[in-house]
Amino acid sequence: MLGFVPGNLSLYKLAFRHKSVAQNIKKGVKNSNERLEFLGDAVLGSVVAEVLFKLYPYEDEGFLTELRSKIVSRNNLNQLARKLGFDKLIEYDSRMLNSSRQGSLLGDAFEALVGAVYLDKGYDFTRSFLVNHIIKSHVDIHTLEQTESNFKSKLIEWCQRHGKDISFDLVGNEEGESMKLFTVQALIDGEVMGQGKEFSKKNAEKLAAEKACENLGI
Amino acid sequence: MLGFVPGNLSLYKLAFRHKSVAQNIKKGVKNSNERLEFLGDAVLGSVVAEVLFKLYPYEDEGFLTELRSKIVSRNNLNQLARKLGFDKLIEYDSRMLNSSRQGSLLGDAFEALVGAVYLDKGYDFTRSFLVNHIIKSHVDIHTLEQTESNFKSKLIEWCQRHGKDISFDLVGNEEGESMKLFTVQALIDGEVMGQGKEFSKKNAEKLAAEKACENLGI
Repeated sequence: MLGFVPGNLSLYKLAFRHKSVAQNIKKGVKNSNERLEFLGDAVLGSVVAEVLFKLYPYEDEGFLTELRSKIVSRNNLNQLARKLGFDKLIEYDSRMLNSSRQGSLLGDAFEALVGAVYLDKGYDFTRSFLVNHIIKSHVDIHTLEQTESNFKSKLIEWCQRHGKDISFDLVGNEEGESMKLFTVQALIDGEVMGQGKEFSKKNAEKLAAEKACENLGI
Repeated sequence: MLGFVPGNLSLYKLAFRHKSVAQNIKKGVKNSNERLEFLGDAVLGSVVAEVLFKLYPYEDEGFLTELRSKIVSRNNLNQLARKLGFDKLIEYDSRMLNSSRQGSLLGDAFEALVGAVYLDKGYDFTRSFLVNHIIKSHVDIHTLEQTESNFKSKLIEWCQRHGKDISFDLVGNEEGESMKLFTVQALIDGEVMGQGKEFSKKNAEKLAAEKACENLGI
């Protein structure tokens, strides 16, 4: 499935073990994939950063940061892990999780797998594996580049779909030395779901929408 | 200064060039250190993740994530870069920056340098350089481990210092399948500054406090 022969098999088994079925190996420590996920997330971030740095020599760091976050988003990694057939490999206890939480198991396991490959084979191998076996075949960078990452419209669509009211309220307005600082809250059915503070009202709204998306897990 | 002989010198020069003195090399693209900073930030995150993963085999990913963010915090990287003498190397236009922004020049340049080393010498070299030349001599991981990073007490102290009222209000309480989900808002002088949703009230408060610190730039 991965295109190479694993060395230390126990690392790969660990990568697919969700904490809901993990056992205590020491006080408070479980043999779940969470530590590997921490490591793999970092290695993946570094590999993707280099790929984008070289692929887009004339784009600034704002562009690179945004595109990377689309590539490593939970949503994208979940899809990727499903394509790779990880849903058949992950050990978990379905009674412990509701369906929305089950969704992120896949992306989490993908990151943990990257951590396992790194510990087993080192950075250069992991980079080649990710570039040649994963990114080239399964990640359409140029389509992601075009993808809507406008949190405001995403949030508005979500509210329409779920029959909820949404409003953006300007709740603060501070005079800075040379600029004004605006505070905007995103309210959904009257409840504050996100707040943003920025030097323009538009950007404060964007930030509030982003926070609300985060809080709602959209 | 770095303990090795650089190969491609232009990369290292670029690492110390702040955007305030950069020139346009193509429409909208400047030869500043910002792209290198993007890359170096990712490589540094990955190296520190591995160091902590191996140094703390019995700590969970929450501990590792928190400790890493202390090590790579702007504050810590600024201090590190100053110790290394970067303040004498960075090219920038002081008229373009106020003093608070000048502070982060140092940490930014440190990350950019890591990006330059990576492009010049590869991952394994960069890892050894960071571990042996930087982390072992200049980063006191165990002291950072003890450092206060409790957002709730940080926020409360800040409010006391600025004469503001603070309260944590429980505003939501959802029954999950097997667990309860709590929503807590951090209010400062009655204004919602952060919100957190978690499976315990205590963790929801912590999250709300963290968001509020973020919003307030504390």
